[in-house]
Amino acid sequence: MAQKELKEFIDNAGELYLAHLSLDCVVFGFRDSQLKVLLLKMKNSDKWSLPGGFVKPAESMETAAIRVLKERTGLSSIFLQQFHVFSDPGRSDNRERIAHLKKAGITVPPHHWFLQRFLSVGFYALVDYSTVSPQPDAFSDACAWRDIGEIGPLILDHSQILFKALEMLRLQLHYQPIGCNLLPPKFTMPELQKLYETILNRKLDRRNFHRKILSYGILRPLKEKRQGVAHKAPQFYSFDMVKYQKALKEGLGGV
Amino acid sequence: MAQKELKEFIDNAGELYLAHLSLDCVVFGFRDSQLKVLLLKMKNSDKWSLPGGFVKPAESMETAAIRVLKERTGLSSIFLQQFHVFSDPGRSDNRERIAHLKKAGITVPPHHWFLQRFLSVGFYALVDYSTVSPQPDAFSDACAWRDIGEIGPLILDHSQILFKALEMLRLQLHYQPIGCNLLPPKFTMPELQKLYETILNRKLDRRNFHRKILSYGILRPLKEKRQGVAHKAPQFYSFDMVKYQKALKEGLGGV
Repeated sequence: MAQKELKEFIDNAGELYLAHLSLDCVVFGFRDSQLKVLLLKMKNSDKWSLPGGFVKPAESMETAAIRVLKERTGLSSIFLQQFHVFSDPGRSDNRERIAHLKKAGITVPPHHWFLQRFLSVGFYALVDYSTVSPQPDAFSDACAWRDIGEIGPLILDHSQILFKALEMLRLQLHYQPIGCNLLPPKFTMPELQKLYETILNRKLDRRNFHRKILSYGILRPLKEKRQGVAHKAPQFYSFDMVKYQKALKEGLGGV
Repeated sequence: MAQKELKEFIDNAGELYLAHLSLDCVVFGFRDSQLKVLLLKMKNSDKWSLPGGFVKPAESMETAAIRVLKERTGLSSIFLQQFHVFSDPGRSDNRERIAHLKKAGITVPPHHWFLQRFLSVGFYALVDYSTVSPQPDAFSDACAWRDIGEIGPLILDHSQILFKALEMLRLQLHYQPIGCNLLPPKFTMPELQKLYETILNRKLDRRNFHRKILSYGILRPLKEKRQGVAHKAPQFYSFDMVKYQKALKEGLGGV
């Protein structure tokens, strides 16, 4: 977005969006045995941010998050979960905001909508990495995936938001199945185990993992096997979505 | 609170509190093998509501919730957990608000702070029933415990907020220990099991429950036994708070 458009956004935001409320999204993807997060590189800055946005007067938080994520990823159907409201009165530092805009040649009058205190609702999203087309927003000049282990400084309290999302995702692994949004439609047991291990950041015992995951009845073995592997070809599985949804609801499926 | 004070609250709210943000608290207590919720009876109405309030400009959501709960319960240290933002644009029906105030003899001018759309952050709290001194607020003439199974119609979307809180509490039982805020400092294994069964609304196998709960190392057996029971006197336990906190953090302790 050019400077003119950014200025227009700033000028009109107070009428288009609710006061002092924002949302930030931690979008997780899984690729090459790595957990990745979608980030935006701020214009005229070395810092990165989480994709986020504001709430229109007639939107629910969820509707606003779906709109924002569609703009950033091109996806219209995303697994999305509210996880926390970040509301520390000091969390949005106006100096950082003013400096960012100044670098873009934009001066914001005092008491402007943009310079209020913002409370932000955190969402996490789980997406199939291969289906996403990352798009920067008005404040950024790049939108890209970053390995969870290689993320540098983020703006405001975004590191804290990311950390909390990861914590919630890890907790979720203890009581709900995970994977149907992060893996392709068919996958092998080693691939599913690797996903769990990557999120938990520790090794799991192969036999225990298989036994537990199979005991929930959420996996359907397919006749096909993974081709082109050196040794014993691993079996493909897919999720039984009816049982998967039931396990999500009832808090079964943890490892 | 008299009508004058209620009118004063309405007149000044726009300056004292952030726009379009509220919070609602589902306060759970456990007594006589019943899960109970703290409710307020609205003035001039048959309806009840959850205890709730608004957010001051310099408060975090948590600070505001602690302040509100202190006013309603007298407790200054409460286990409190944010669980969801209720943000449906139609959730706060202004007609219901206006009618309530009209019955109290108060007319609110159009576009008043009180007649905005409100997004509400839901918290649930777990308290030791016996320590609470329920206090009504400006909009209510009673504050009382109600058995979870005997709750009538609530205002706005408060039934939905209560249901969601219960759902979250049930999910939590699958991955975190519970009880140290709902039970007195020492308790028997049957009492702990009854608490879990009451929240889950189903019977648990006694042996499995004992085995699982003991396996987490969060319980400390005491030398004392429950006195005055007819048959075999049950052993008292207390929570080992260091291990309890660790289990909370790591997502262990589910049944």
